[in-house]
Amino acid sequence: MPIFETQEEIPEIRERLHRVGITNLRTVAKINWKGRVYTFLPLFEITIDVPEEKKGIHMSRLVESITEAMSEAVEEEVMEAHSSLEELGKAVIYRLEGKHPHKRAEVWIRTHLIIPRETPASKKTTYEPYDVEVGVIKNEDGSFEKILRVKVIGNTACPHAMANNNGKTHIQRAIGELEVRTAFDEEIALEDMIDVVESSFSHPTYTLLKTVDENAVVQGMYRNPKFVEDVAREIFAKAKKRFKGRIHVRVISNESIHKHDVIAETWS
Amino acid sequence: MPIFETQEEIPEIRERLHRVGITNLRTVAKINWKGRVYTFLPLFEITIDVPEEKKGIHMSRLVESITEAMSEAVEEEVMEAHSSLEELGKAVIYRLEGKHPHKRAEVWIRTHLIIPRETPASKKTTYEPYDVEVGVIKNEDGSFEKILRVKVIGNTACPHAMANNNGKTHIQRAIGELEVRTAFDEEIALEDMIDVVESSFSHPTYTLLKTVDENAVVQGMYRNPKFVEDVAREIFAKAKKRFKGRIHVRVISNESIHKHDVIAETWS
Amino acid sequence: MPIFETQEEIPEIRERLHRVGITNLRTVAKINWKGRVYTFLPLFEITIDVPEEKKGIHMSRLVESITEAMSEAVEEEVMEAHSSLEELGKAVIYRLEGKHPHKRAEVWIRTHLIIPRETPASKKTTYEPYDVEVGVIKNEDGSFEKILRVKVIGNTACPHAMANNNGKTHIQRAIGELEVRTAFDEEIALEDMIDVVESSFSHPTYTLLKTVDENAVVQGMYRNPKFVEDVAREIFAKAKKRFKGRIHVRVISNESIHKHDVIAETWS
Amino acid sequence: MPIFETQEEIPEIRERLHRVGITNLRTVAKINWKGRVYTFLPLFEITIDVPEEKKGIHMSRLVESITEAMSEAVEEEVMEAHSSLEELGKAVIYRLEGKHPHKRAEVWIRTHLIIPRETPASKKTTYEPYDVEVGVIKNEDGSFEKILRVKVIGNTACPHAMANNNGKTHIQRAIGELEVRTAFDEEIALEDMIDVVESSFSHPTYTLLKTVDENAVVQGMYRNPKFVEDVAREIFAKAKKRFKGRIHVRVISNESIHKHDVIAETWS
Repeated sequence: MPIFETQEEIPEIRERLHRVGITNLRTVAKINWKGRVYTFLPLFEITIDVPEEKKGIHMSRLVESITEAMSEAVEEEVMEAHSSLEELGKAVIYRLEGKHPHKRAEVWIRTHLIIPRETPASKKTTYEPYDVEVGVIKNEDGSFEKILRVKVIGNTACPHAMANNNGKTHIQRAIGELEVRTAFDEEIALEDMIDVVESSFSHPTYTLLKTVDENAVVQGMYRNPKFVEDVAREIFAKAKKRFKGRIHVRVISNESIHKHDVIAETWS
Repeated sequence: MPIFETQEEIPEIRERLHRVGITNLRTVAKINWKGRVYTFLPLFEITIDVPEEKKGIHMSRLVESITEAMSEAVEEEVMEAHSSLEELGKAVIYRLEGKHPHKRAEVWIRTHLIIPRETPASKKTTYEPYDVEVGVIKNEDGSFEKILRVKVIGNTACPHAMANNNGKTHIQRAIGELEVRTAFDEEIALEDMIDVVESSFSHPTYTLLKTVDENAVVQGMYRNPKFVEDVAREIFAKAKKRFKGRIHVRVISNESIHKHDVIAETWS
Repeated sequence: MPIFETQEEIPEIRERLHRVGITNLRTVAKINWKGRVYTFLPLFEITIDVPEEKKGIHMSRLVESITEAMSEAVEEEVMEAHSSLEELGKAVIYRLEGKHPHKRAEVWIRTHLIIPRETPASKKTTYEPYDVEVGVIKNEDGSFEKILRVKVIGNTACPHAMANNNGKTHIQRAIGELEVRTAFDEEIALEDMIDVVESSFSHPTYTLLKTVDENAVVQGMYRNPKFVEDVAREIFAKAKKRFKGRIHVRVISNESIHKHDVIAETWS
Repeated sequence: MPIFETQEEIPEIRERLHRVGITNLRTVAKINWKGRVYTFLPLFEITIDVPEEKKGIHMSRLVESITEAMSEAVEEEVMEAHSSLEELGKAVIYRLEGKHPHKRAEVWIRTHLIIPRETPASKKTTYEPYDVEVGVIKNEDGSFEKILRVKVIGNTACPHAMANNNGKTHIQRAIGELEVRTAFDEEIALEDMIDVVESSFSHPTYTLLKTVDENAVVQGMYRNPKFVEDVAREIFAKAKKRFKGRIHVRVISNESIHKHDVIAETWS
């Protein structure tokens, strides 16, 4: 039986589509980062452009590009795995090039990073979770860009309430997001981006805190009161100094005195 | 052309199903509460049981029961609308009785309540949002029960950190949930359930707070430090005193010193 | 006791912030649309810019702007309420102008619309839910823009599988999103944007469907097989014809043969 | 400076709390399953009961129990890691026993499983994602129970529409959930539970599908039309036969002809 390739037909309505592909695909990925292999269970999105005269794309080829990029790494032994999420993303696009014509391609990988830290006073090991997202974009001229995003949980102690209440104030969890869009070859570690955000709150937070550590965090928050605006400015200023590229910062504070959140956002 | 009623066939596998129906149905509803008409955009779930010998249910009849219960109210003039979310739920089940055989039926209605309050110092009006959910259950013996749920945002100021840091402490947003399961005719206002939860935090929160109000909330939180356990116990004790029925309490605190949450839960 | 206005201090780090304000604020709103009053329970976000030399903003004034814009409408009698979500957004910004200096302001309002429709064969009334979002932006030059977004649920029947399986194919729920960014005075009804999206699927969907209606929808889907790419192109082409402004289209299909989704996106 | 142990004080309100602890804690975990090591990034919840006369619990000891249970496994070399998610949960409770007095304890672990499968016609390898959750409960008498949950994506082809439209019908993505509550020592593989659910839909779904595979899935769905009720009954009947314990089944279908979902649920 012949197979009809409906995707190759000319569509009735002729419009170029910028991004067509698969999204919310959960799979397993291995990264060899500085000699150690890390396993992730990321969500993938892969899209390519579709010209005016083609009806659709062959979705299965996008899926195969992920699977092959993975198994390629595995075959070369795990120690030879992709050295970062963006290298994995690029490997997916390279696989895709042989499979499906396109001018422009994007791969997005979203996962969690768990990083060991030291608690502030007892110096115990604590494992801290962060949300990260990496986008790799192949432009029409063949150049590659990347978009790196981190999302870090910290806190704010309000300086306004502190000034008006003899040192008492309201404190709350806050979430800081930093995005850097830059050339693919620019070396930027997600860990460094996380550091920029985490060091800009009233105080970093920890999964494990013994009483002496809890005291250190509490004292630290009161020594360092900050509006959500201050956190955003500090992330932005540090990021501009450390990372080359376009910076976007967003901080959201889950106010303890309100039912709504407050937000501060800026970009270059 | 004859219409096949596949639903009435005998299924290959004979098992009674307890709950079959529609869920995540968004629609509009009007309630006449103490002489004023309130409009909601709730999510509905309606289920009935299916006996061993029936393959399926006629889903459209469940949808019609909602629509008719609404329009019945509207036709009798809005001022004659259902006087509470649970009366609306019961009206849906009454409509369903004439439409679809069943032994057991449930209607769940989930929406937001916006309640006007007064700010603590400036005495301005502020509108506070709460999530509420009402379930109406018709049991096999024809009796009606209801399950009322409210979800209220407040805060906790940690007494342990306060004792160890000369009055300084960590503070955070907390969410209190109260569920009462009781006979249908038991009169329990969702507003009273909200009061029970909101008065059990270190302090209530407000959408609008001028500086004098903010100061009142801050001072109040420090005067009333509470573990998430204390909040749960207080809600539970108050609820048992005020409401007849089975009580379930859950409090979650979005810790400002951790990336995870803490939880306290109990029930009767 | 003097009140310290910490917000007015000069911050250590001098960076302009583009968007500072409140978000995820749930409240009640009334709109008088073509002579009928509709009630919503929307989520609000309001932001203004903060210059380099100011530490923070007075968040409570943003909240007051919402409340006053609402009550202003109510005082002028509900029949004089704002005539659309964007008029409400603009009224909030007008209120804000007297309260808080700024160069740039944004108001975002997110809610559900419930629209009565007629079922395709039995001609019964059915109430269909849609997610809508309206953003009103006051630019630095004082001009107003608006961003209108609708999200509509429909379906796709795959033409490729249909060609290869003698008319059998896979069918699934799909979600179409349309955004128009335009001058504030451009008259665009959210209902018309919804029509553009809803008419571009393999077939519209309905909350209520009797068997004759279900048959009409099923027959209609098979007569009109579409890739997610076809749906995106059709929405885009129709929207460009009907609405003046910048158009963004995104369609996501919850594939019935995959665990992941497929996506098609384009913009002008 | 002395450390105040506020948690050990007697609370004003004396009520036993059934579940107090930490929730939404994201961390990394390794499982050695049948000789191969798998890495997960699960969400943890750990709770213990609190007697009437204790004000609170020492949250940090719950966190330490997770960390130590992990590192214990790592120290004994990864090949000696816990052999299943429930063994890991039990190891956490064992660690907790030496740290914090309690009568009752619960550990919940939620993660994704990625399982390799074969596509139906081309026999290629495809990686399929599933959501799983494991709860380990230590009862007051010291006995251990476990609760195993899997969530599987599949599809339904409506038999009613098929009978009324000469073989044409509506098809959609459906989600099947199976829970088994049983004694800890009962051997039940999550993979087997997934098989029970996945084999009960109109057809299983696949991440990778070449055209010949897509045809096989499409043909399969039409040969096997099922109501959401049929899927629930089949999962329930199979689960009762294969697994000893209390069974709970819930199936939700994201209808392609409606904007809402339909649901079928039953339990033993």
